[in-house]
Amino acid sequence: MAVTFYDLAGADPALRFSPFCWRTRMALAHKGLEATSIPWRFTDKQAIAFSGQGLVPVLVDGKKTIADSWAIAEHLENAYPNRPSLFEGDQSRALTRFVNSWADSVLHPWIARLVVRDILDVLAPADAAYFRESREQRFGTTLEALVADREAQLPEFRKALQPVRITVRAQPFIAGEEPGYADYIVFGGFQWARAVSPFRLLEADDPVHDWRERMLDLFGGLAREAKGHEV
Amino acid sequence: MAVTFYDLAGADPALRFSPFCWRTRMALAHKGLEATSIPWRFTDKQAIAFSGQGLVPVLVDGKKTIADSWAIAEHLENAYPNRPSLFEGDQSRALTRFVNSWADSVLHPWIARLVVRDILDVLAPADAAYFRESREQRFGTTLEALVADREAQLPEFRKALQPVRITVRAQPFIAGEEPGYADYIVFGGFQWARAVSPFRLLEADDPVHDWRERMLDLFGGLAREAKGHEV
Repeated sequence: MAVTFYDLAGADPALRFSPFCWRTRMALAHKGLEATSIPWRFTDKQAIAFSGQGLVPVLVDGKKTIADSWAIAEHLENAYPNRPSLFEGDQSRALTRFVNSWADSVLHPWIARLVVRDILDVLAPADAAYFRESREQRFGTTLEALVADREAQLPEFRKALQPVRITVRAQPFIAGEEPGYADYIVFGGFQWARAVSPFRLLEADDPVHDWRERMLDLFGGLAREAKGHEV
Repeated sequence: MAVTFYDLAGADPALRFSPFCWRTRMALAHKGLEATSIPWRFTDKQAIAFSGQGLVPVLVDGKKTIADSWAIAEHLENAYPNRPSLFEGDQSRALTRFVNSWADSVLHPWIARLVVRDILDVLAPADAAYFRESREQRFGTTLEALVADREAQLPEFRKALQPVRITVRAQPFIAGEEPGYADYIVFGGFQWARAVSPFRLLEADDPVHDWRERMLDLFGGLAREAKGHEV
């Protein structure tokens, strides 16, 4: 089989920083699937027009095209049932959706408020112009204003991680003894920050930091060896 | 078998308002276990001293005594494997812990900020004195001050429910097509508010409201028929 996926890249094509694409990359590794990743830029809308929309990740698996990280995870689980499971079963898949919802509505807005300005510096010029304009419209302020007091926001951000912290104090991964798709969802947010920013999100004695270290070690250090900052 | 559990009660012994005890009550109903509930008050420490601690729920199942709602859920699942499952399996149990952690660290502090003052009015006199003193020490302010601007806090509270909202837009219950322990955890918070306060937490067009309605209908309307406010 041939699996390819379109993965958001910076000016340096080796820099992969989309939190959603990281969910997919880790899910592919979990399934043990070899996939060719195609670096994609925000302004390459034409390159993924065949998917019927304009966002990555886009996965092409044989004759199937799937967009949206959640739909991709469900496709991988359904299409490769004999590979290691991302979800133990239906209830586990449903509960992972809660984690996905928490990441989308709490974790990502928080991480954006801390590192979004740094993204500009890693983008190709056309992408940087697109990114500034679209994000400043979304946030209703300049990227510089959004992150201006980020040091002061850190305690509140770390407090918002409390659901993860309590969980990984009790067990090594969010999904239990072994990582599952829920872990890749939350990890995607941290890998996004790590790719673009030297800003330190987690203190070394935070159980969330320890969990992130375990995540960085998975699959032969796949995420640790990816281009990014040592934070 | 004889199962009994100690359940926090108001001055009116029929008023049961502990969010943690509601987790246990719903879990017992899910398992189809008949249990005798013993109304307990905050200042009845002596009555549960045999459990080695001073909080409810406390479950007594034959020769076993279990305190703490999470430990009770695990006990029920392990001791009654042939009854309907609270957790589909190990990963599902682990992911439910994330929901538990979110409820404890986000949902409950929020609901407390909105309705904690109303609790005073339903307590027996000795409990009311204990409750005011212990909670004002915990919150570092008077109960009246904590809830003074609750109307103004509602939009932020409702925003904090976004992880639940996105989830129950996609599926009927947090645990999927059928309710699971994750649902009872989150529902406990709402049932706590419903028991003590006429303050309206949810708008009628909120998917979280619809989900709560489904929860109120479970087990022949167990939670709906319990003493509380129509909110």
